[in-house]
Amino acid sequence: MILQRLAIFLLALPLVTKAQNTIQYVKPIVGTKNMGHTFPGATVPFGMVQLSPDTDTIPYEMNGKYNPDVYRYCAGYQYDDKTIVGFSHTHFSGTGHSDLGDFAIMPTVGQLLLNPGTADKPETGFRSTFSHENETAEAGYYKVKLDKYNILAELTASNRVGVHRYTFPKSDSAHIILDLMSGIYNYDEKTIWTYLRVENDTLVTGYRQTNGWGRTRTLYFAISFSKPFYQYGNKDFSPKQVYKGFWRKFDQSKNFPEFAAKRFRAYFDFKTNEAEAIEVKLAVSAVSTQGALLNLATEAAGKNFDKIKNEAQWQWQKELDKIVITTASQEDKENFYTAMYHAFINPTTYMDVDGSYRGIDQNIYKADGFTNYTTFSLWDTYRALHPFLNIMQPKRNADVVRSMLAHYGQSAEHMLPVWSNSANENWCMTGYHAVSVLADAIVKGNTTGFDANKALDACIITANNRSFDGLGYYLDMNYIPADKNGTSVSTTLEYAYDDWCIAQAAKKLGRMDVYEQYMKRSANYKNVYDASIGYMRPRLSDGSFKKEFDVLSTHGQGFIEGNAWNFSLYVPHNPEELIKIMGGNKRFVQHLDSLFTMDLPDKFFAETEDITRDGIIGNYVHGNEPSHHVAYLYNWTDKPWKTQERTRMILKKQYHPEAAGLGGNDDCGQMSAWYMFTALGFYPVAPGSDQYSLGSPAINAAKLQLENGKTFEVEAINQSDKNVYVEKVLLNGVNLNRRYITHDEIMNGGKLVFYMSSKHR
Amino acid sequence: MILQRLAIFLLALPLVTKAQNTIQYVKPIVGTKNMGHTFPGATVPFGMVQLSPDTDTIPYEMNGKYNPDVYRYCAGYQYDDKTIVGFSHTHFSGTGHSDLGDFAIMPTVGQLLLNPGTADKPETGFRSTFSHENETAEAGYYKVKLDKYNILAELTASNRVGVHRYTFPKSDSAHIILDLMSGIYNYDEKTIWTYLRVENDTLVTGYRQTNGWGRTRTLYFAISFSKPFYQYGNKDFSPKQVYKGFWRKFDQSKNFPEFAAKRFRAYFDFKTNEAEAIEVKLAVSAVSTQGALLNLATEAAGKNFDKIKNEAQWQWQKELDKIVITTASQEDKENFYTAMYHAFINPTTYMDVDGSYRGIDQNIYKADGFTNYTTFSLWDTYRALHPFLNIMQPKRNADVVRSMLAHYGQSAEHMLPVWSNSANENWCMTGYHAVSVLADAIVKGNTTGFDANKALDACIITANNRSFDGLGYYLDMNYIPADKNGTSVSTTLEYAYDDWCIAQAAKKLGRMDVYEQYMKRSANYKNVYDASIGYMRPRLSDGSFKKEFDVLSTHGQGFIEGNAWNFSLYVPHNPEELIKIMGGNKRFVQHLDSLFTMDLPDKFFAETEDITRDGIIGNYVHGNEPSHHVAYLYNWTDKPWKTQERTRMILKKQYHPEAAGLGGNDDCGQMSAWYMFTALGFYPVAPGSDQYSLGSPAINAAKLQLENGKTFEVEAINQSDKNVYVEKVLLNGVNLNRRYITHDEIMNGGKLVFYMSSKHR
Repeated sequence: MILQRLAIFLLALPLVTKAQNTIQYVKPIVGTKNMGHTFPGATVPFGMVQLSPDTDTIPYEMNGKYNPDVYRYCAGYQYDDKTIVGFSHTHFSGTGHSDLGDFAIMPTVGQLLLNPGTADKPETGFRSTFSHENETAEAGYYKVKLDKYNILAELTASNRVGVHRYTFPKSDSAHIILDLMSGIYNYDEKTIWTYLRVENDTLVTGYRQTNGWGRTRTLYFAISFSKPFYQYGNKDFSPKQVYKGFWRKFDQSKNFPEFAAKRFRAYFDFKTNEAEAIEVKLAVSAVSTQGALLNLATEAAGKNFDKIKNEAQWQWQKELDKIVITTASQEDKENFYTAMYHAFINPTTYMDVDGSYRGIDQNIYKADGFTNYTTFSLWDTYRALHPFLNIMQPKRNADVVRSMLAHYGQSAEHMLPVWSNSANENWCMTGYHAVSVLADAIVKGNTTGFDANKALDACIITANNRSFDGLGYYLDMNYIPADKNGTSVSTTLEYAYDDWCIAQAAKKLGRMDVYEQYMKRSANYKNVYDASIGYMRPRLSDGSFKKEFDVLSTHGQGFIEGNAWNFSLYVPHNPEELIKIMGGNKRFVQHLDSLFTMDLPDKFFAETEDITRDGIIGNYVHGNEPSHHVAYLYNWTDKPWKTQERTRMILKKQYHPEAAGLGGNDDCGQMSAWYMFTALGFYPVAPGSDQYSLGSPAINAAKLQLENGKTFEVEAINQSDKNVYVEKVLLNGVNLNRRYITHDEIMNGGKLVFYMSSKHR
Repeated sequence: MILQRLAIFLLALPLVTKAQNTIQYVKPIVGTKNMGHTFPGATVPFGMVQLSPDTDTIPYEMNGKYNPDVYRYCAGYQYDDKTIVGFSHTHFSGTGHSDLGDFAIMPTVGQLLLNPGTADKPETGFRSTFSHENETAEAGYYKVKLDKYNILAELTASNRVGVHRYTFPKSDSAHIILDLMSGIYNYDEKTIWTYLRVENDTLVTGYRQTNGWGRTRTLYFAISFSKPFYQYGNKDFSPKQVYKGFWRKFDQSKNFPEFAAKRFRAYFDFKTNEAEAIEVKLAVSAVSTQGALLNLATEAAGKNFDKIKNEAQWQWQKELDKIVITTASQEDKENFYTAMYHAFINPTTYMDVDGSYRGIDQNIYKADGFTNYTTFSLWDTYRALHPFLNIMQPKRNADVVRSMLAHYGQSAEHMLPVWSNSANENWCMTGYHAVSVLADAIVKGNTTGFDANKALDACIITANNRSFDGLGYYLDMNYIPADKNGTSVSTTLEYAYDDWCIAQAAKKLGRMDVYEQYMKRSANYKNVYDASIGYMRPRLSDGSFKKEFDVLSTHGQGFIEGNAWNFSLYVPHNPEELIKIMGGNKRFVQHLDSLFTMDLPDKFFAETEDITRDGIIGNYVHGNEPSHHVAYLYNWTDKPWKTQERTRMILKKQYHPEAAGLGGNDDCGQMSAWYMFTALGFYPVAPGSDQYSLGSPAINAAKLQLENGKTFEVEAINQSDKNVYVEKVLLNGVNLNRRYITHDEIMNGGKLVFYMSSKHR
């Protein structure tokens, strides 16, 4: 860590005076096995580039049918795979559907092969075998030996530039392949158009346009090589192209400076000495190749791999040091800082260094005084990630809101983002949860740089788009009829919560007419509650409840990615009333207890989306989001100690500092944000409220360095794996006779002390 | 013409004080039958929009093979057709290969049909029958009755906005179809991506990206309707799209504000009263939909159809009035002003009103102090069109040079344009004739706004690109070997001329080393001349001439679109020397005479590209460009009267003010510029020289209003169809004892008087 200390010396900022070396606990490999869907490669906090190895590029379709294996490759990398097909520059972190994987680069030596080959026969293509023994993944740095070629591959990144260092053996035929066809969730027609220009023998630019999860996505690049290539070329894999025009005059396949087609791979050839390193810097831009060149020049010109690596790791160090924890075990530290690392990947920067970015209407805008972000997996991240950012990254979260308002202003549908990425709304999942993010920021006073009233207006317009996902019915009937919509119950519940968020923001802004209207709407959850059975239940247009109904099944029951057992608890904004309608304290505690302890029949695992058995405890699904608040609901009963017990149990069961360490998709940091909140002892059950429900801290102490210069400390006296119960809590030395703390109490700085015990009270 | 007089009153500019009503002589219909490849629709001088009816959209391929009929539809319209399929916004004028036809709009009533149907069964689709009786084509205005629907369609345009006025019958189901799939030289995969947004019930934006002659061409649009549509929708004709994502949630086919796919047509529905007119304004931009909206607002907001039509016609009037001619016949006036109209369509504006444009590298640039132009059909237009612009439109031609220099700066191949359009080089035809345009401007002192020395540098770099079309061989061997290149002879000849142009520019700029080097290169035509037979002839790498050789054939003989008879005369820069090597005055005159009078065997017509029998006189091909200087070569012999006789004969035979009035492609105004020069009595045999070779004026008088405020007058005393011979010529009252005038003599203003006679001297 000598280099890091050097970096600290060079870059020392007033905020942090002494690095805590928290970066050593980050394990980017966590979640890369099974369903975590994280990537092991290099990125900087909230960076635009995520440069990471892809172990396979599985086609979205096989023999004309959806290929379910594609799901395993949401992040391009699966830990159990034996080969690497390339290092690509864009990856989602932890998603359950995917896209990206742009601009894969692969170094090879020997015969030039321009097909990847297959995992079982890597010798038939350019892919290489590798082993985890020769692999290192750190925050901002990744290294692997490509065994087939005896090439050492190292990766690092700045915000917009992926940096590769390939150390070659001696070879007269060393190649760097630029695979412009590969991609995640790929299929033959996904790449709509690709454009490549060789500017000179060390500089290449271009772009490609894809039609995937992002329906109309264009990403530009500029690549610089540290050593001139002595020849180059490409191979065209396009489907039959009717018209090639007078470009036929030229042999465009070799040493011709320009090519454009649907699908092709390019290569650049070198002669290398033993252990000769070639560095490749690839800058991206959503705007233009000019933008990519500007990003390249600004972030990477004149810097070698080591310097950019140091800067990347210093950026991580600076972010991670904002929370310094004391724990008994290395494992807990690894869990915590890995969670923090994963939570600080998304949302991602989406603009050039000069502020230019592509809007949702495909026009180019300039972000005026803010950083424009994208990758809004809002059905997941409104729950804990954005509240976490409101504490630890308020400036960034305010910029996230500004980015969402820009999206809203450019949206053809006049809506805030639902699941948006790279100037594309993909409409994934349900609800209009951007309003939760906006309301949470407004209620917590984190409104720097935007007009809170205009933000509220955007929420209201969004919440009244009659053509959106059952919303017309919801507005007319106060619930969504099951005969009109496949996720009628869960969407009604989610709308009701979102409406409550609008009410809270309106209250904060003194717009009481709006408050009252939306408080009324926020009670709509009652309209899908069937008191006769004690569950939320699909209701038909005629007002009757749907007869056929399975409270355990997650399919065709009116819920999205969840069953009635879990979703019936989805009234985060009013647990008191929920408990009342569900039969009172005792019956509610029974429901919760059963949820955590019941034995779920095997068949439900097969059908449940986005999680595996690893992500389920009883019938409680931690591997997916709808129940993330559920363990905290005991706080509204006479058994708050069960919140303490259950959350500690979940932390232990669901998070491990190893490749298979996540029981479900990390979902752009939501699973990780849940970990950090819960480990710190408090959780935002209802974002849009200023309250955090208290749990059981899993650390001994934590110091949160806030952006406002204040510090908030948590101490857990006598905390251990056995001492999970809270005897008493003192805030700034005063006994806290309630089960929550407020946002202001955190942001004003101070100290929260938990006295822990092995016995509950 | 009352409205025009009103416009003159409103817009009166100092330059022109009195309209000459020359616009009445313009017949846009000229050249629309057979091979003229002009379009009858509406455009303004050098405008970005050419809004014109398309009578068919012929696929580029039929049953997997090139469909030769596509050639007839280079401009979208064929006079003999009986149906119209739509009115699209971009058209080339007179080209022999094609593209464009963007954004076809078609009004219909009754059942909504979203397929065009076929010409023989128009009832099967949305196309309509029409007749020429109900059709009017004027400069800047087009009108036709759509018989099938009883809709009157009228078109006009500003620079960047096409304006439609559709007068409907009473109907509950009136439709305006926006066909985003149709196009010229179309095929299933040509449209790569299309994007549509309904902003509100009178405003629609979008773009489409095509892969055609322009390999990577994107055009954006913004459409405003004068009346709100009450519903709208689209039909997707894309090939199987594997992945549609969560957009499936919505019914995007009806009243959904956003759509994107490869191929689709949209429609907008209205209820109309009897004779209700709906106006549609479609603005284009090569930059963005924002740019299209800006163009729409700037050029068309607040103006109705009539006002925009008046402005368009006033613009034409202003340009056409720059030359006022006196002739004996109406037909001559129609020929002349129609030629002037066709000459002032290309090059076309290629930037938004704020100067933003897309560069050849696909980046967005801002034209700083100039208008950026595109549509450079240089193999054609360097000959007479650009020299004509240097006289009548020097500011524009200097901007054309600046546009070419911008192209050069953005070119991956580091070359000036060859045939470039819409941010795309398509490499059509041979030579690097942009250097002729640059040299002509430099030699004539028309260098406002650009650095002549940098322009010369660009010429030199262009002329030394070894990978370009045989140029490496040319540089090494001083000719292109026939075994290495299919057009080895004609390309050697063209390079030699272009090199002479570089030498002339260098001389003007005092760079004598360059002058001498390129003068030497300009003699390379001698290296493909076979003195033993008296023709230019393919020569092999070993220095010997190719044995099998047919001096009449245009195929496989080493010439592009011409035979040895014609191309052997292609030394425009040194006729004296050419005559010498071809055996001296007598033999040369015999060669010319035979060319014009010989009887060409039928088989050569079948194989000759880009012309029909109409375009051929003897073996002289006027319908294509390589011989456009040939009739003037008599001026270098002892029979200059034959130049006078032949050029007058060509004018009469090759130009008629009717649909079939052009014997070959107008080629972006080259055929028309030839007409005007020749009718005025002088012609630029070798652009890059400051001399114009004298011929026989076909007008009685002409007054050229120059941009510098001066006037140049031509008078032809006793001129008639019989009196075609020149007895003497006086320049400013002084006998002109030479066969040319210089550029300065024109630009300084003055009067050139020809005394005509029925007998040659």
